[in-house]
Amino acid sequence: MTLKLHATAIRYDNKMIDVLDQHKLPHEEVWIKSHTPQDMVEIIRSLKVRGAPLIGLAAILSLAQLTENGASLNELIEAAELLKKARPTAVNLAACIDRVMAHPSRILESIKEIFDEDVKLCEAMAQAGAALIASGETILTYCNTGSLATAGIGTALGVIKIAHLQERQIHVFACETRPLLQGGRLTAWELKQAKIPHTLICDNMVGHLMSLGKINRVLVGADRIAANGDFANKIGTYSLAVMAHYHGIPFHVVAPYTTIDASCLNGQQIVIEERNGDEVRGVSGSFGHVQWSPLTAPVYNPSFDVTPGELVTSYILDAGNRTLNEFRESINE
Amino acid sequence: MTLKLHATAIRYDNKMIDVLDQHKLPHEEVWIKSHTPQDMVEIIRSLKVRGAPLIGLAAILSLAQLTENGASLNELIEAAELLKKARPTAVNLAACIDRVMAHPSRILESIKEIFDEDVKLCEAMAQAGAALIASGETILTYCNTGSLATAGIGTALGVIKIAHLQERQIHVFACETRPLLQGGRLTAWELKQAKIPHTLICDNMVGHLMSLGKINRVLVGADRIAANGDFANKIGTYSLAVMAHYHGIPFHVVAPYTTIDASCLNGQQIVIEERNGDEVRGVSGSFGHVQWSPLTAPVYNPSFDVTPGELVTSYILDAGNRTLNEFRESINE
Repeated sequence: MTLKLHATAIRYDNKMIDVLDQHKLPHEEVWIKSHTPQDMVEIIRSLKVRGAPLIGLAAILSLAQLTENGASLNELIEAAELLKKARPTAVNLAACIDRVMAHPSRILESIKEIFDEDVKLCEAMAQAGAALIASGETILTYCNTGSLATAGIGTALGVIKIAHLQERQIHVFACETRPLLQGGRLTAWELKQAKIPHTLICDNMVGHLMSLGKINRVLVGADRIAANGDFANKIGTYSLAVMAHYHGIPFHVVAPYTTIDASCLNGQQIVIEERNGDEVRGVSGSFGHVQWSPLTAPVYNPSFDVTPGELVTSYILDAGNRTLNEFRESINE
Repeated sequence: MTLKLHATAIRYDNKMIDVLDQHKLPHEEVWIKSHTPQDMVEIIRSLKVRGAPLIGLAAILSLAQLTENGASLNELIEAAELLKKARPTAVNLAACIDRVMAHPSRILESIKEIFDEDVKLCEAMAQAGAALIASGETILTYCNTGSLATAGIGTALGVIKIAHLQERQIHVFACETRPLLQGGRLTAWELKQAKIPHTLICDNMVGHLMSLGKINRVLVGADRIAANGDFANKIGTYSLAVMAHYHGIPFHVVAPYTTIDASCLNGQQIVIEERNGDEVRGVSGSFGHVQWSPLTAPVYNPSFDVTPGELVTSYILDAGNRTLNEFRESINE
């Protein structure tokens, strides 16, 4: 077969991989090429492609490219190992690669299946989640979980988009999501494109809005969900969960089954990636580079945090909406 | 009399007011001059001088300058009204001006008294607060509450400095404090100057650190404390209070009596200033200017939030350390 795949932020056609450079959004839409697995590792590490599902898809497209260029099985195995190490926290990356490499004779078919499946998973989550949302609700979301993070319409942001398409009157508060500003750059861009009423805020404004009664629901994505329902997501997610709990506001995690890691018993087993301190000392992107802190300021820069399942009102999965107990039971089945 | 006053961030000498431009810190130490009350209003509005106590002091130095230049009483009254409107939330601004204008015949004397008093209030708060801190503690602080915010060593940061000078082994986590980054720029600079071990973090990392047991105490300043103990402080303070409460971590407000507004019954009566949306769409300062969000992204930019007294473990005042009940009783005395 010949592989050809198109999503909002990644394309594969005629052995060429084109990636929408998410560093350059929202001001420029620049597509960059990946010619080798090494290129793709660099693209993933530098967050030019990001979002747990999309990282997995990008990595296996690199294996598709190798395959179509006639690589040997050993070359594929080597590339798979290299790609798996690009980022440690999201489960989708290693899981996608393992799934594809399980049947080396049908790599292209597997990749197409995974890609098509991701689109369908997004749609299923979005339908399950949108059913919970009433007209008039104000929804808080975090980081970017839309069509820039998946092959489809997204996870948490996919729910929001479908609720909007179903003509529910909603308003979205998007947290900017320091240090890398995926909310301020990417979610603000996607919400504008989709013409969904929204307001951009700094992450530290959430408690204030909740205390004023202005948030009805919180929707976030996940990078890895453990068997007991604990989950890792972008740093800051745990703070949102604590504040939603304190104010009695429903807090939902939206993720496909591919984000669940049943072999991981609880959140303490999830490895938290730490990134370069310069990300905290300032900001950097195609929009420019500035550093406001003292040049050598000591910093801490964890990329993710872990939220215990007890703070989750429900898991909006492709299989439907699940309470913590229902989630745990489904893992043990 | 001839007035001459020196603090870390403001100087008055020979009818000249020099203000350390806090926009330009930490990379440059630039002093700017204020020749008129209009100049000072612009300096205050643009946050070149900030911090509730220092704003009040800066404003009355403008009245000193007018007085020494031979202004009429009417001119002084007009200037006082203008200066009062520079920023609405901090109580110190209006309170300082009213105190000085109550006795127009001795304006310079009053100003010197207020200035000297602020230094002593800082020292008293710092001693009361430092007595609570054990060696080995890790302390979280917010915004900038040091010698860049007062005439003395500061409020919350003053406590930290004295605990350090008393050779308590402490480590400070400083929140960057979006959108204007007073923590990332100014507190990081002051902590470095004072050689206090510290780590700079993004505001959304606080919950994660608390969940790991890495924060023993939270110290914040205040812009206005109502009679019932509710207080306004930099946006994001309320979120810290909620998270400290959830994790059982002591949460202290450090403020001089000049920040208490007994005529304000509770937090709902405090006016919350909203600032320009561009502050949320990007960052701007002498370090440079960048905007990462879509150019016309709708934003919300409240400068302060209100924390209810029930979330405060104690009020560290110049009069000593007070529980909420003790604080309320002292107001009614």
